Amino acid sequence: MSVVLVVGSLAYDSVKTPSGKAERALGGSANYFSVAASLFSKVRVVGVVGEDYSQEDRQILLKREVDLQGLQTVPGKTFHWEGTYEQNLNEAVTLKTELNVFAHFNPTLPSSYKDSSFVFLANIDPVLQLQVLSQVEKPMFVGMDSMNFWINSKQEDLKEVLKKVDIVFINETEAKMLTQTSNTVRAIKNVAALGPKYVVLKKGEYGATLYSAQHGFFHTPALPIEMVVDPTGAGDSFAGGFFGTLASQNKIPTWADLKAATLAGTVLSSQTIQDFSLNALTKVERSLFETQLSSLKAMMI
Amino acid sequence: MSVVLVVGSLAYDSVKTPSGKAERALGGSANYFSVAASLFSKVRVVGVVGEDYSQEDRQILLKREVDLQGLQTVPGKTFHWEGTYEQNLNEAVTLKTELNVFAHFNPTLPSSYKDSSFVFLANIDPVLQLQVLSQVEKPMFVGMDSMNFWINSKQEDLKEVLKKVDIVFINETEAKMLTQTSNTVRAIKNVAALGPKYVVLKKGEYGATLYSAQHGFFHTPALPIEMVVDPTGAGDSFAGGFFGTLASQNKIPTWADLKAATLAGTVLSSQTIQDFSLNALTKVERSLFETQLSSLKAMMI
Repeated sequence: MSVVLVVGSLAYDSVKTPSGKAERALGGSANYFSVAASLFSKVRVVGVVGEDYSQEDRQILLKREVDLQGLQTVPGKTFHWEGTYEQNLNEAVTLKTELNVFAHFNPTLPSSYKDSSFVFLANIDPVLQLQVLSQVEKPMFVGMDSMNFWINSKQEDLKEVLKKVDIVFINETEAKMLTQTSNTVRAIKNVAALGPKYVVLKKGEYGATLYSAQHGFFHTPALPIEMVVDPTGAGDSFAGGFFGTLASQNKIPTWADLKAATLAGTVLSSQTIQDFSLNALTKVERSLFETQLSSLKAMMI
Repeated sequence: MSVVLVVGSLAYDSVKTPSGKAERALGGSANYFSVAASLFSKVRVVGVVGEDYSQEDRQILLKREVDLQGLQTVPGKTFHWEGTYEQNLNEAVTLKTELNVFAHFNPTLPSSYKDSSFVFLANIDPVLQLQVLSQVEKPMFVGMDSMNFWINSKQEDLKEVLKKVDIVFINETEAKMLTQTSNTVRAIKNVAALGPKYVVLKKGEYGATLYSAQHGFFHTPALPIEMVVDPTGAGDSFAGGFFGTLASQNKIPTWADLKAATLAGTVLSSQTIQDFSLNALTKVERSLFETQLSSLKAMMI
């Protein structure tokens, strides 16, 4: 069935940026991804929250018909991330990570999820990414994200996941770190050599570059945003827009599909960063998306 | 007549980069600009060199039929710049600037130069930029470059020049410094508000963004270069490719012309950075240019 399965975090984030701060606001990769992807496609979530996770926050996904059968609620507190953005709004500095209920997360897929054709392994422990992927019967297209923490602490597991996915979303610093390469172009090629057929290199305000050894490079600029309030969730919104548009077509993506998906991801991420938490992203409707997509294309031709 | 007049430096540069170093190698904005522009158009140079400037170096421009009637040779030594690039290859650190013969440069245009239709004021003292511009009878399209040194030391003169040009080429740091703006998008708009109808924001490996209040934004990525040897001259090669293609059409440029010029500039700058001095740039022929232009376009559609 044409649907995206995402495994990732549902979290409360405390974030400080030059524009202000948010305390324990709704966040987490699975939330950003699901809201973005649900604009285009059905979404199934695998994740875990604590007893403090509010009904109101759950409702944000339910309103968009996101399937939450795979969302476990267990005793304890929801995952909490605390971070800050300094002068460089393109990269977060993590101040605190409280895994809480994520510490003993054992993802088990509801049987209704096993036929998922599109799978996105958001930024969580690569061991959990593998565990989820192994439970999907015959995925058509699989993507993953990660972060510096796993590159440093679980690189071997991470490389196992890289071998099993079709596409990886990675930022410049992570790509250079993972491949021990100083040049961005060599880094992106070296990431692809680790397994994934496609790589999306995320460059924050400088846009994103899609690469495959077969097709070469495709670049999209970011939309010109005059006030970046909070970059948190930009990457997951990007992946959500990307996978949502692909899944809506229910076929193995072509290079043209992937280029269009890169544009969609860019539009969604540019919305997310204009407010804290999911406040801006949840306001995006298809009409706004189409308008912004036209603006983006106009910058490129 | 359809020709570009450039005023700028002819220099000997000592440069250190992660790839190695060059001692007193040929450099200077007018040299990079002229070699790039002469691929497409006639070029006239206004500048000054000392008695140490070699015949061989002069020959590089003469071979390309660049008009050197406006190049003065005076007693003393040629301008010498010493700089280094550290981890961040996108921006130079100036170690030493020996003005030498440039200290008393009094640019006077040969009468044959006065009908120039395209004028590029490369990065020199804004007072000299104004002095040159005032001697051109009826320029059709005028561009300028500058640098942090003039933004700090002669900002009022610089702002006078900005009022008189059609386009300015400026990098991100300079644009933010000049407009005291932290956001790049606001910075580019604020630069345009100082006078020039068009702004090209140079972003090094992240490409370049063309802006006008009327037409909005156009972005081109950089070509994927795996080995950046020396970024010196990238901006001047960009401007040379940009102005050369515009001048070859001998009409007031349209937005479409300016977008095409941005691509041409990108191709030329990407060649320059692959070797020290003008070594890579002088090897570029029209066929290589066309091939690289096709590669660049393929990254954007």
